[in-house]
Amino acid sequence: MPGITGNMLIAQSGGPTMVINQSLVGAVLEAKQHKCIKRIYGSLHGIQGILDENFINLRKETNATLEAVAQTPSSALGTVRKKPTAKDCAAIFRVLHKNGIRYFFYIGGNDSAETTHIINEEAKKADYELRCFHIPKTIDNDLRENDHTPGFGSAAKFVASAFIGDDLDNRALGGVKINIIMGRHAGFLTAAAALARTRPDDGPHLVYLPERPFSMPQFARDVKAVYAKLGRCVVAVSEGIADSKGTAIAAKFSKEVDSHGNVQLSGTGALGDLLASEIRRRTKIKRVRADTFGYLQRSFPGIVSEADATEAREAGAMAVRVSVTADADGSIAIKRKPGKVYKVEFKRVPLKNVAKETREMPARFINKAGNNVTQAFINYAAPIVGPLAPTARFKALE
Amino acid sequence: MPGITGNMLIAQSGGPTMVINQSLVGAVLEAKQHKCIKRIYGSLHGIQGILDENFINLRKETNATLEAVAQTPSSALGTVRKKPTAKDCAAIFRVLHKNGIRYFFYIGGNDSAETTHIINEEAKKADYELRCFHIPKTIDNDLRENDHTPGFGSAAKFVASAFIGDDLDNRALGGVKINIIMGRHAGFLTAAAALARTRPDDGPHLVYLPERPFSMPQFARDVKAVYAKLGRCVVAVSEGIADSKGTAIAAKFSKEVDSHGNVQLSGTGALGDLLASEIRRRTKIKRVRADTFGYLQRSFPGIVSEADATEAREAGAMAVRVSVTADADGSIAIKRKPGKVYKVEFKRVPLKNVAKETREMPARFINKAGNNVTQAFINYAAPIVGPLAPTARFKALE
Repeated sequence: MPGITGNMLIAQSGGPTMVINQSLVGAVLEAKQHKCIKRIYGSLHGIQGILDENFINLRKETNATLEAVAQTPSSALGTVRKKPTAKDCAAIFRVLHKNGIRYFFYIGGNDSAETTHIINEEAKKADYELRCFHIPKTIDNDLRENDHTPGFGSAAKFVASAFIGDDLDNRALGGVKINIIMGRHAGFLTAAAALARTRPDDGPHLVYLPERPFSMPQFARDVKAVYAKLGRCVVAVSEGIADSKGTAIAAKFSKEVDSHGNVQLSGTGALGDLLASEIRRRTKIKRVRADTFGYLQRSFPGIVSEADATEAREAGAMAVRVSVTADADGSIAIKRKPGKVYKVEFKRVPLKNVAKETREMPARFINKAGNNVTQAFINYAAPIVGPLAPTARFKALE
Repeated sequence: MPGITGNMLIAQSGGPTMVINQSLVGAVLEAKQHKCIKRIYGSLHGIQGILDENFINLRKETNATLEAVAQTPSSALGTVRKKPTAKDCAAIFRVLHKNGIRYFFYIGGNDSAETTHIINEEAKKADYELRCFHIPKTIDNDLRENDHTPGFGSAAKFVASAFIGDDLDNRALGGVKINIIMGRHAGFLTAAAALARTRPDDGPHLVYLPERPFSMPQFARDVKAVYAKLGRCVVAVSEGIADSKGTAIAAKFSKEVDSHGNVQLSGTGALGDLLASEIRRRTKIKRVRADTFGYLQRSFPGIVSEADATEAREAGAMAVRVSVTADADGSIAIKRKPGKVYKVEFKRVPLKNVAKETREMPARFINKAGNNVTQAFINYAAPIVGPLAPTARFKALE
């Protein structure tokens, strides 16, 4: 039963990215191609907007506006960090039903996939035909089933670019520089800092990921060794680094927890300050600085991976294309095609495969010592991020 | 006595910028045009490299390399934060004398102008003809005699761009977002955040500068008022904000907020964390975040103001041009020509006019309440920074 006639609702959830509006616009433009889709509603602030019936009419937006919004960072419909209760889900379903929504698209990470999954189950229980799709989005790159996720490439481009500049800054001034990067449980974004390296002595010289236990004494020894060799050291540290018991180092400094049970790691410089003071204390190196890249990583205008923007758009369009061809539900996943040239394809996968649990960096991407990435990671990430700004040294200093 | 025959030495000092290599390369390319200039030495790490006679031969670098270095962020010769003693200055002069240096160029801020001034006085005392020039550079934009300084425009472009993205992020998620910006005594760079605004409700909604006394209760009241109106608030805060007695807030509260014994202003998130926790405590607003932009402001590759790059290049070239025409010394200052179209000219000014003391933002750039900038500031800064990334909203949300 392809193409059930009805209205469509789309919403954005979780942390904004540079390209989440590409997915939104990709879905809306595709929806306009299908006669079975009548009204196209955008819900403001994710499921909160559904509960409040706070919609805008996306059919009224011109293609010129849609294209301009697609190029704009952050979530144009607003977003929310809210895990719906069973009661919320029943209420959401009632709103969808009441508004004749037959097509529902939710752009977000694993928590949003979980929400989509629950709403889909509600519809099934009520025997209401709802084409219910999750469209992937996360700078953390931690969704299962995906080779990588929309949003990651552009955030990774920001991180790698920042390290190119910051490494040159550190080279000019010396000392130790520690940069804290987003990524709660998966180290992909932190690892992307390594793309900044083009010469043997380029930083980041050390990379600490949530996937490997973090030891303060070992950290100090690692920094000391690099500093002894180069007179300087640039370090990439994930905000999610944890000790051998799995306790986040930053968690000791934050009491704020959202409704998904996530501890607030971003929006504070505490972890960077802790690591800097520990290095000062343990190594006696004088110039030690820490920066926390913070929200700039996901919203800085102009620093966009072209592959990321294209793929985000296509993921949104693909979800709509699949939704009108059969009584389907699911999530759209990016799969990489085998071969030397970078190519991807988009596949529908079951919602439950993407919901709840996340994935981490595979072991082959992390070096044995657990303080750097491997060439395999560079090969994986480089085409997702695309070309970076070239830099030059005087030949006398090469 | 134009064009005394001899060697040239050039060095970079203080904090790196996006365009300090433009000034370096501008000077070197100009020097190649003048037969009276023989060897062209680059000193590594500023005056430290002179004391150590640690030079590279910049004549050996091809024009292609020079052009590529000009486009590269940070200080290609390395830099130093060192205020030379009288003994150092005498030693520096001896090295210049010994190496037949007749042309000395020092790229940096007011401290570097002071160093250049002292070296120049040493040369005069010894009756040694030295053409001694300071080339301006500082992201703080606080050099006297200058309408603005090379390095400011690009750092300001980074700050304004970051606020464009971060304001969209805050708009999507709500809450209060505080961003800490570099600038110890002058608020120009913090003020540049205001260039991000294109719509009446765009952030930053509040701007706090070192030029006006900072009061925590007033800050909380300001934030509360914006939040009551918009449901969100984006704030730009200078790292150098100080109370009515002139004590830096970062220093004053550092023991309360920073359990790690960290007091310096940059390279720490302490001030941002303090302000965020005070807002949480005083307003009961739940979502409050702070980011400290840190060193990215002065080194992020690709975010360059074209006017800034051009002017930095010209300031370097101009210093050399002036130095070969007469027995001159001085600093090159950027003056803005009157008129509606943005145009600048470069003038030689006495070293002592730029040395030591800095300038602050004029009163006409700051609003009466001391929590925002005026249109006069926007008119001043916009052409220095150049065009910023456009953004779009859905028409339904305009």
